[in-house]
Amino acid sequence: MQNIRVAIWGFGAMGSGMAEMLLKKKGVEIVGVCDRNEARVGKDMYEVLGVERGDRKPVIITSNPEEAIKEGEADIALLATDSFTRNAFDKIKFVVERKINVISTAEEMAYPQAQEPELAAEIDRLAKENGVTVLGTGINPGFVLDLLILALTGTCETVEHIRAARINDLSPFGHAVMEEQGVGVTVEAFHEGVKTGKIAGHVGFPESIHMVADGIGWKIEKIDQTREPIVSSVYRKTKYAEVQPGNVAGCRQCGYGYMHGEVKIEMEHPQQILPELEGVDTGDYIWIQGTPNISLQIKPEIPGGIGTIAMCINSIPHVLNATPGLKTMLDIPVPRAIMGDMRDLIQR
Amino acid sequence: MQNIRVAIWGFGAMGSGMAEMLLKKKGVEIVGVCDRNEARVGKDMYEVLGVERGDRKPVIITSNPEEAIKEGEADIALLATDSFTRNAFDKIKFVVERKINVISTAEEMAYPQAQEPELAAEIDRLAKENGVTVLGTGINPGFVLDLLILALTGTCETVEHIRAARINDLSPFGHAVMEEQGVGVTVEAFHEGVKTGKIAGHVGFPESIHMVADGIGWKIEKIDQTREPIVSSVYRKTKYAEVQPGNVAGCRQCGYGYMHGEVKIEMEHPQQILPELEGVDTGDYIWIQGTPNISLQIKPEIPGGIGTIAMCINSIPHVLNATPGLKTMLDIPVPRAIMGDMRDLIQR
Repeated sequence: MQNIRVAIWGFGAMGSGMAEMLLKKKGVEIVGVCDRNEARVGKDMYEVLGVERGDRKPVIITSNPEEAIKEGEADIALLATDSFTRNAFDKIKFVVERKINVISTAEEMAYPQAQEPELAAEIDRLAKENGVTVLGTGINPGFVLDLLILALTGTCETVEHIRAARINDLSPFGHAVMEEQGVGVTVEAFHEGVKTGKIAGHVGFPESIHMVADGIGWKIEKIDQTREPIVSSVYRKTKYAEVQPGNVAGCRQCGYGYMHGEVKIEMEHPQQILPELEGVDTGDYIWIQGTPNISLQIKPEIPGGIGTIAMCINSIPHVLNATPGLKTMLDIPVPRAIMGDMRDLIQR
Repeated sequence: MQNIRVAIWGFGAMGSGMAEMLLKKKGVEIVGVCDRNEARVGKDMYEVLGVERGDRKPVIITSNPEEAIKEGEADIALLATDSFTRNAFDKIKFVVERKINVISTAEEMAYPQAQEPELAAEIDRLAKENGVTVLGTGINPGFVLDLLILALTGTCETVEHIRAARINDLSPFGHAVMEEQGVGVTVEAFHEGVKTGKIAGHVGFPESIHMVADGIGWKIEKIDQTREPIVSSVYRKTKYAEVQPGNVAGCRQCGYGYMHGEVKIEMEHPQQILPELEGVDTGDYIWIQGTPNISLQIKPEIPGGIGTIAMCINSIPHVLNATPGLKTMLDIPVPRAIMGDMRDLIQR
């Protein structure tokens, strides 16, 4: 049986990380890479990754999707270019019209029904028309604050209220993330950044909240989000950021899903550098109030980078096995690590 | 749309618990109950449960499966009669031949491929021949020591070793469980009971270990199990059991799955009464060694009774949506609580 053939669109931290993971797996190969970064375009993917090519054919990175993603030459494309469905839509359409399946890392694509129901319906229609499957996933949204919560509710007779928190450490991340989260700025600049949208915080609460609610059959009527500065009382410094006492070490984002005027789903996602300097324990936490009550913790938190890369790669066989259309984590069997040959997981 | 019609075979703690849960749900009704307990046979299910019947039709409990489970009158049967595939097989065959889907609470049925590959193949053949689906599930096996582990590995690039423990409290359980776990006996009697099979401990380690291994693509060559007495240093007493210091408060069962001569999967399941008297914290624990490492805890443990009942009921729509054949938790979308109308989850 032929290897599963994967194309990658977007070769930043996520796209190149997925390539590195794929190169260690059996029964799968990378057939094309599309990226707009000039430093990478024209180079061999193996050279860019610093991985021995061995007897594999070179994969020259191109800025032209027509060259990287060709009908009949790839089974699936990994799309690691955007956070928002609206921005990813044309690329998804491009791939789907070439009768190639899609996995997207765009946070909103984990549940595009939440904020882009019309685009979601159009993606579903296009996918069905072309006989392929489209899935968005990642560590969050995609797992910690939605699929994992849903899995726990499977052991419940009733659920009354859900609260969850992902408390993580931004220290390893670079400049772009520091800016998005407002690390190092004054409290005033933080509030200004939130207003202008420059400080975006976490993308994904509406998606996670709607996925959980739809998954268990709650009709959510409203979602509120707040973004507050995590003001540091101590000096903090990493390779990419410096925070003076009284300034901002990160962004505490909260999301609330309402049903019948009551908060039924609460999510908290404080992201900052060096949380341990003020005694903050990082971790993923879920509290379900119901029959039974459930209290889960994962300490430290599942790391965001590897987690997103793994969720995408480990979903490949389930997307290939799925019926055509737009799917979410509610539709496919739970992805798991792939330690054997990926082809063994394909249903014929 | 018509309600989902459910028959129940076996009306002990699990069967009657599933009935109670179903009666609180929308879009589903109980159409037949089969049980061999003479105290219940001939009585109305609502009377036995102590639940107001309202304007619903009586459901008279019968010892004759021909009366309770009729072709064309039920969509699915919940089978809560056995722990072993071998014992459940004829009942599964009976239901499947009436073109009715099956969910079984039998521990071995969570992954019958592990110890009964021939019966598993025969169930798969019968199910396909009759166009229905058969699933075994429960809290454990079915969730804590298999599906939940697998879900976590989905966030991993590689997995090197898996260890998990379910540390629970047997205090609420009755005489049958006390005997199966050796609670209250001397250490000598415990070892004798393990030898004769009277002290069975937990049924399900081979199933959980094989499900996890097959799920991630490991080839397990051997499984070892040990059953040791949990010797109490203090006096313990519950409604159904009494333990003198020096005697046995429960059974510590361990399971080991080997690959290439090495233990790759370790599971521990100590079950005893009143663990808190010796400072034992109950909980469900999972440690994955890989990229990344993951350490999860759920404290206290998800309760076994409600958990099994909920996993079975919450799996109903996924079984009805599945293609025909024998399925496992590896095949269906993750079950979640059903707080809306169960019919909304059925794909047409």
